[in-house]
Amino acid sequence: MVHGPEMAEPRSRLNLRQRYGNIRTLSEALAAPLSREDQCVQSMPDASPTKWHLAHVTWFFETLVLMRHAAHYDAYDRRYHYLFNSYYEVFGSRHARQQRGLLTRPSGGEILRYRRHVDKAMYRLLDATPAPGVAWIVELGLQHEQQHQELILTDIKHAFGLNPLFPQYAKADDAPAVESAALSWLHYSGGIYRIGSAGAGFAFDNEQPRHPVVLAPFRLATRLVTCGEYLAFIRDGGYRRPELWLSDGWNFVQSQAVHCPLYWIGQEGEWQIFTLHGVSPLRAAEPVVHVSFYEADAYARWRGKRLPTEFEWEAATANEPVEGNLLDLTRCHPRAADEGERQFFGDAWEWTRSAYEPYPGFKPWDGIASEYNGKFMCSQMVLRGGSCVTPAAHIRASYRNFFPPSARWQFSGIRLAEDA
Amino acid sequence: MVHGPEMAEPRSRLNLRQRYGNIRTLSEALAAPLSREDQCVQSMPDASPTKWHLAHVTWFFETLVLMRHAAHYDAYDRRYHYLFNSYYEVFGSRHARQQRGLLTRPSGGEILRYRRHVDKAMYRLLDATPAPGVAWIVELGLQHEQQHQELILTDIKHAFGLNPLFPQYAKADDAPAVESAALSWLHYSGGIYRIGSAGAGFAFDNEQPRHPVVLAPFRLATRLVTCGEYLAFIRDGGYRRPELWLSDGWNFVQSQAVHCPLYWIGQEGEWQIFTLHGVSPLRAAEPVVHVSFYEADAYARWRGKRLPTEFEWEAATANEPVEGNLLDLTRCHPRAADEGERQFFGDAWEWTRSAYEPYPGFKPWDGIASEYNGKFMCSQMVLRGGSCVTPAAHIRASYRNFFPPSARWQFSGIRLAEDA
Amino acid sequence: MVHGPEMAEPRSRLNLRQRYGNIRTLSEALAAPLSREDQCVQSMPDASPTKWHLAHVTWFFETLVLMRHAAHYDAYDRRYHYLFNSYYEVFGSRHARQQRGLLTRPSGGEILRYRRHVDKAMYRLLDATPAPGVAWIVELGLQHEQQHQELILTDIKHAFGLNPLFPQYAKADDAPAVESAALSWLHYSGGIYRIGSAGAGFAFDNEQPRHPVVLAPFRLATRLVTCGEYLAFIRDGGYRRPELWLSDGWNFVQSQAVHCPLYWIGQEGEWQIFTLHGVSPLRAAEPVVHVSFYEADAYARWRGKRLPTEFEWEAATANEPVEGNLLDLTRCHPRAADEGERQFFGDAWEWTRSAYEPYPGFKPWDGIASEYNGKFMCSQMVLRGGSCVTPAAHIRASYRNFFPPSARWQFSGIRLAEDA
Amino acid sequence: MVHGPEMAEPRSRLNLRQRYGNIRTLSEALAAPLSREDQCVQSMPDASPTKWHLAHVTWFFETLVLMRHAAHYDAYDRRYHYLFNSYYEVFGSRHARQQRGLLTRPSGGEILRYRRHVDKAMYRLLDATPAPGVAWIVELGLQHEQQHQELILTDIKHAFGLNPLFPQYAKADDAPAVESAALSWLHYSGGIYRIGSAGAGFAFDNEQPRHPVVLAPFRLATRLVTCGEYLAFIRDGGYRRPELWLSDGWNFVQSQAVHCPLYWIGQEGEWQIFTLHGVSPLRAAEPVVHVSFYEADAYARWRGKRLPTEFEWEAATANEPVEGNLLDLTRCHPRAADEGERQFFGDAWEWTRSAYEPYPGFKPWDGIASEYNGKFMCSQMVLRGGSCVTPAAHIRASYRNFFPPSARWQFSGIRLAEDA
Repeated sequence: MVHGPEMAEPRSRLNLRQRYGNIRTLSEALAAPLSREDQCVQSMPDASPTKWHLAHVTWFFETLVLMRHAAHYDAYDRRYHYLFNSYYEVFGSRHARQQRGLLTRPSGGEILRYRRHVDKAMYRLLDATPAPGVAWIVELGLQHEQQHQELILTDIKHAFGLNPLFPQYAKADDAPAVESAALSWLHYSGGIYRIGSAGAGFAFDNEQPRHPVVLAPFRLATRLVTCGEYLAFIRDGGYRRPELWLSDGWNFVQSQAVHCPLYWIGQEGEWQIFTLHGVSPLRAAEPVVHVSFYEADAYARWRGKRLPTEFEWEAATANEPVEGNLLDLTRCHPRAADEGERQFFGDAWEWTRSAYEPYPGFKPWDGIASEYNGKFMCSQMVLRGGSCVTPAAHIRASYRNFFPPSARWQFSGIRLAEDA
Repeated sequence: MVHGPEMAEPRSRLNLRQRYGNIRTLSEALAAPLSREDQCVQSMPDASPTKWHLAHVTWFFETLVLMRHAAHYDAYDRRYHYLFNSYYEVFGSRHARQQRGLLTRPSGGEILRYRRHVDKAMYRLLDATPAPGVAWIVELGLQHEQQHQELILTDIKHAFGLNPLFPQYAKADDAPAVESAALSWLHYSGGIYRIGSAGAGFAFDNEQPRHPVVLAPFRLATRLVTCGEYLAFIRDGGYRRPELWLSDGWNFVQSQAVHCPLYWIGQEGEWQIFTLHGVSPLRAAEPVVHVSFYEADAYARWRGKRLPTEFEWEAATANEPVEGNLLDLTRCHPRAADEGERQFFGDAWEWTRSAYEPYPGFKPWDGIASEYNGKFMCSQMVLRGGSCVTPAAHIRASYRNFFPPSARWQFSGIRLAEDA
Repeated sequence: MVHGPEMAEPRSRLNLRQRYGNIRTLSEALAAPLSREDQCVQSMPDASPTKWHLAHVTWFFETLVLMRHAAHYDAYDRRYHYLFNSYYEVFGSRHARQQRGLLTRPSGGEILRYRRHVDKAMYRLLDATPAPGVAWIVELGLQHEQQHQELILTDIKHAFGLNPLFPQYAKADDAPAVESAALSWLHYSGGIYRIGSAGAGFAFDNEQPRHPVVLAPFRLATRLVTCGEYLAFIRDGGYRRPELWLSDGWNFVQSQAVHCPLYWIGQEGEWQIFTLHGVSPLRAAEPVVHVSFYEADAYARWRGKRLPTEFEWEAATANEPVEGNLLDLTRCHPRAADEGERQFFGDAWEWTRSAYEPYPGFKPWDGIASEYNGKFMCSQMVLRGGSCVTPAAHIRASYRNFFPPSARWQFSGIRLAEDA
Repeated sequence: MVHGPEMAEPRSRLNLRQRYGNIRTLSEALAAPLSREDQCVQSMPDASPTKWHLAHVTWFFETLVLMRHAAHYDAYDRRYHYLFNSYYEVFGSRHARQQRGLLTRPSGGEILRYRRHVDKAMYRLLDATPAPGVAWIVELGLQHEQQHQELILTDIKHAFGLNPLFPQYAKADDAPAVESAALSWLHYSGGIYRIGSAGAGFAFDNEQPRHPVVLAPFRLATRLVTCGEYLAFIRDGGYRRPELWLSDGWNFVQSQAVHCPLYWIGQEGEWQIFTLHGVSPLRAAEPVVHVSFYEADAYARWRGKRLPTEFEWEAATANEPVEGNLLDLTRCHPRAADEGERQFFGDAWEWTRSAYEPYPGFKPWDGIASEYNGKFMCSQMVLRGGSCVTPAAHIRASYRNFFPPSARWQFSGIRLAEDA
C-alpha cells in the first residue's frame, strides 16, 4: 500500500521541499505496480502512457523552473522538449498526441533517470530557498503533477479495460459495503453567493476572480447516485428513449452504441464491472461512475430532477470539510455512502450542468503558464469535487475540472439537484 | 423587390390570419428567384434545400395544428410526415438529414401544391377564431417559418458559394457605403439586471424564466467590427498565431485550413467577397460576417478585448429600439454603420462568449413543442441581435440564437466588449 | 418509347454523321422522362447528375474535336472546360467529382443550348467529310457518349433508389416472364485461344493487342444466375458464413451491413425489388443484378463453382451473335432466359474472376486520349457482355468493362463456370 | 550476430526436429535486441507487435498441431486462442487486429513461457516420428513462422521509423558499397512456359497447380533500380506529374502527400535514410526499397519501361540459384549489386504488374489451412524474390508474395522490364 505523508499530513505543516519529495515519490509509486509494457501503452488519443506522464511532469519542472531559474542547469536531453511537451504552443512544436504510445524509446528506465536528473537540480534549487515567484511556479508544477497522478490511474484503467484479460492494477484491501445511505435532500436558500477562490491557498487562474452570483433556492441530493439506482434507469429503457436525452447525447449513444456506463460488462441481470482491482459483480450500493455528461443529464431528467450548476455546487460545499474517499491505492474505486456521508469530495467527479466558461474578469496567468486553463474554455462541461483517485491535498470547493460532454474514462458520476 | 406588409407594419395591428398570409407569402417570395434545381440542392448536412424548407414549415402546421385541431382534416400525403419532419422524435422516424438533397421528388411544384392544401385548411381554421391554445401553436408555427426564412437565404448562399460560377441570388438596389462610423465605447454600470422575456409578446421557452443576473461594469463597442478592421488581424498573422486562439479554435483553423472568413475569395491585397448579390471587391466599411465563434474570439483577443456575455448584451439592448438592417431582399448583406447607428439589431448575429445553457428554472414547453429548444443546450454558443436576413418582426432583445462554435454559414459577426 | 434508328439498324449502313445524330438524340431522349431536379442530383461520388453527363460528353466533342479540328470554332463558355472535364489531367484542373450535384447552374436548359451549339459545329465539320484521324476521334466521342448513356440510367436509378418515394423512371411495356430456362452447362475444350479485338471495327486500346492465351478445358453455365437461385444462397445463410467469402468481401458485407443485392427491399419471405419501372415483387426467374464482385464470388463458391476468367468468357463468346436484352427504354431490366437463350450479351454485365490488367504489349493511345483506359488498370475487376441498359451497337465479345469489386450500382450479375 | 544453422546449412540435411529448433530459436533471436516495450508496440493496423508475432506463430503450432495430434495435450491458456488467432474464421472469434498493441498483458516474459510450453510438447511429438500428415502441418507451421520472422523486422522498423529518436535495431557490421554494377538487359525468348511449383519441396497452395502460360519475348534489367536512379525520377518532378501515374496511384500520392519512398528523411539535396541500423546518408548505389506498387509503376513508366509480370519473373528465374542478400542480422538492408549479381533473390521484393489471382485450377488446401492464401486473392499485387530480411531457406522461384498496391513498409523494390 502507498500512503505517503502527502496523503496523511496537512499541507501547511510541510515545506515546499518536503512536498516536492512526497509528490514526486507518489507518482513513481503509482507506476510501480505496472510493468514496463503497461507503462508504455496508449489506448486512445485522450489517454497517455504512464511513462509519458512521468516524463511530462518532469519536463514541466525542467522547462518552467530549471531552464529559467536554476543557474548553470544542463538540459538532460533537448529532444525531450519535443517529446514531452503536451500542448504548450509557447514552448514550440511537439510530438503528436495520438502517437505517444509509439515511444518505446526512451525506455521507462531512462525516464526514471531523467526524473533523477531533474530532481537533483530541483532539490538544489529548493534548498536555496527560492524567491516567491519561483516558489509559485514550483507549486504550480506540484499541482500539475497531482493532476497527472489522477490521469495515470484513469489512463491505465482505460488500457486495461480494453484488454480481454482485464488485468488488475492493485489488490483491494477492504470489503466493499453492501448498502448505501438512503437518498434525501439538502436545502439551500436563494440569494447572492460569492463564487471562486477566496485566496487562502493555491488556486488555478480559472477559479478567479471571486465574484457574486445570484442563485434561486435549490436542493441537492445527500449523496451520489448509486449503481442500483442507475440500473433502474437502464431497465426502464433509459438508453432507448430519445425524449430523455439532449440531441447531441442521443446522437452519441446511437452512434457509439452506448447502453451502459463504461466498464460495465455483460448483460442485464448479470452485470459485472471492471475496476482497477479487477472484475467483480456490480454492487448496487456503490456510486455509479464512468458516465458521460449526456448520461448524467438523461438520468437526472428521467428522475424528474436536474444536475446542479457549478455555482450551486460551490455554494453548497464552501463550508463542507474537504474529506472523503480520495486517492488511496488500496481502494481506487468509489465507496457506498455511509449514513450522513455526503460524498461531496472524493468518490466521483460530479458533472454539473455548467459549461466551462471564464469567470467575469478572468485573466489567464501571465507568461509561461498562460495556456494552462483559459484556452480550453469552450465545448466542455465543469465537474466538481474530485474522485477516488484525486490526491487529497489537491482538491477544494472552488476547484473546477472540465471535460467534453462525451468523456467517460474519468471517475465521473452524478449528484441530483432540483429547484426548491 | 419583396416588401410585404409583414415587414412594413407593426405586428400588433395585424390579426393572426393576416400575419399567416403575409409570412406564408414571404417564404415563397424568397424562393421565387431560384430555379427548381436551385431549390433542390443541399450543399452540406447543416443546410437544407429551399424546397425542403418550404415543405417542412408546412409539415409543422399540418402536424402540430391541423392534425390536432382541424375537424376532418385529411393529410395531404402521409409519406410527407416522414420526409419533412426535421428532428422531432415525438413525431416518429424521419428521412436522414444529410440526404435531403436527394429528394428530387416530390417536385418543387408538388411542394407548392402541398402548401396550397395546408393553407386552405389553415385559413378555414383561422377564420373560425381559434381557441387561445390553437392561436398559440399557430403563432409558434409562424415564428418557426420565420426562422426558416432566414435559413433559406443562408443555405442557398452556401450552395451558390460552392459553385464556381458564383450565381447571384438577387440584384442589389442600393450603393454600399464607403465609410463607417468611428468605433467608440458605450459604458454600462454594474448591478443586478433582469434577463429574459418580460412576457409582453411571443417568446421562446429558452428566453424564460426572467431572472436576475449580477453584472460587473462593462463597455460595448458602438458598432460591429468591420471587414477593414478584420483585415488588419489577418495581415498581422492572426490566423497563424496560436496564442490568440482557443485550443479547439486553433485545431479548427489548422485542420480546415481556414485563413479568412467564409466567402472571402482570393488573396491578401486583392480580396473579393461573395454575397447573395454576386461577387464584388471587399468593402472595408462593412461589418465582417461569416466568422466562427473561434475567429470572433481570437479577433477580440488580438484587439485586447473580449466578446460580451449574452447577459451584458441583453442588459445593454433591453431599451434599444428594435430596428436595423433586417430582412429586405434588395440588400441581403450587412451595411456600414452610419454615425450614431449601433447595429444591435440586424446586420449580423453577434457571437457572445456565453455557452447556450438553460436559464435557472427553465422548463421546456409541454407536449408537442417540447423538443423545440431545450435539447440543443449543449456545446453551442449564443448569438444575439438578428442579421440582415432576419425578418424584422422576428427579433427582440431577449432572443437567443445558438450555433456550434465552428459554424460560419450564418451571417455571424463580432461586437467587442471590455471590463469597465 | 424511345427506339431510334441507332438501335434498330446495323451500324455499317449508317454514316458517321447519321450515327452522330442518332446517338446525340438518344442521350437527350434518355433524359426526357426526368425533371430538371432529377437531372441535377448526385447520389454518391461514383454517380453523376444526368445534366452533367449530357454536358460532359459534349465537352468531349468540343475539346477533343472542335477545339483541335474545326476552323474558327468559338468555345461556348470556357468555364465549362473546368466544370465538365471528368478526369483528364492533360486538359487541366477540374471541378471536384463529389461536388457535381451542387451545380444547379448552369441549368438543364442551358446545357441543352450548349449541346445545340456543339452539335451545330459538329455537323458543319462532319458535312465536310473529315480526315480519318478526325473521324476516329469523332467515333471515340460516340463510343464515349454511349458509355455515358448507360451511366445516365444506372446513376438515376441509384438516386431514385435512395428516395423513400421510389420514383418510376419509365413505364414497362411488357409482362415479365415467370419462368426461366433450366440451367445446364456448355463445354469448351482447352488450348490456345486468341484474345482481344481482331480489328474489324472500333475497339478500345484496352482490348489490344490481340494475343494468345492458354486455357484448360472449362464449362460455362447456359444462362445467368436467377434471383430465385440467389435467394437460396441468402436462405442458406450465405451472407453470414465467412468461409464463403474473400477476406475483403467479408469485411465489405460486415462493415456495410450488406445482406442482399442492392435494390432488394424488405425481408426474407416478402422481398420486393426496386427497378427503373418502380417497385415490384421479386421475380425468381429474372437474373440477379446489382451484386458486387464479392457477392458473385461468394455465390459461386457456395454453389461449388467459380466465376469465369475474362479469357474463358471471350473464348466462349467470340462466335456468339451479339444480341440480347440490350438498351430499350420499355424494359430497363434483365429478363428471364428463354429456352436456348444464353444471355451472353445484355441483361447483366458478368463479373469475371480476372483483375483488370494490361494485355501483353498494351500501349495506351497516343496523345489526347491516352488517359482513357490504361490509368485505371489497378484494383478493378473485369466485367463482360453488356447489360439491359447498354446500347446494342456498343457491345462486342472483346469489350472489357471494369469496376472495383465492391461496386453494385451497375447492372452486374453472375454466370457460373467450372473446370471441365 | 545471429547466424543459426538454418541459415548456413541446406535444408535437406536437417530433419524436421532440427529445423523446428533452429527456426524457433531464430525468432527469439530476432526479438532479442528489442526491449519489452519495443516488443509490445503496434504502429499501424497492418503491423503487429513483436510479442504478438512470437505468440501467434506459437498459437499456430498449438492449434493446428498439438490440439489435433498430440495425445493429452493441455492448452497453455485457452484465452490465448482468442488473443493470438490472426484471421482464421474457422478457429472462432478473435481479438481486433488494430488493438494488438494494447495487449501489455500477457507480458513478453509470459509469451516466452508460452513458447517453452508449446516447444516442449512439439519436441515430444517430433521425437515420435510423426505421420506424414502431421509432418506436413508442422512444415507449414515452420514456413508460417518464417513469414512472421520477416514481419517482426519490417514491423519494428515501421514503429522505430515513427519515433523521433530513430532507434537502431542492430549495428551493421560491414561497410556498404559505394558503387553498383551498370544496368543492362537480359533477353528471354517467347513461348510457352510452365509456371508454378514443380513439386520438389514445400510450396504454398497459391503456387499450384503448375500450368502453361504463353509469354511474348521480353527483357529484364540485370539488377534492381538504385536509390540514385530513383532520385533522378524525384528530381525530374516524378511525384508531381500525373501522366506518369495510375489513377489510384495519383490519388494516393496526392492524398497522402507522398513525395519520396518511406523512410527517406529530409529534402532534396540532403537526403538521409532510416534503416534498421539507424539513420545514414542516402547511398545512391543501393537498391531503392519501401516504395509502393504505384511508385514502382510510375517510375517504370518514367523510364519508358514497365514492371515484369509475375510469369515473366518466374520464367526468368526458374533456373537461377536461390541465393542473395537474404536475412542476416548484421546487414538488414539491401546491398549495391556487384558486377554480375542479378539480385533476383534477396535485397528487395520485386513488384510485378500482376494482380494476385488464383492459378487455373487452384484449390485452397482442405480443412484447417484452407484460409491461408486463397481468401486474399483480390485487390493485391504479386511480389517476387524475397528481401534482405527473408530467411534464406524460405524463398524460391515460384514463391508468390502479395500486398495491396499502396503498401510501403515491406522491403519492396523495382526491377524494370520491357517487351523484346
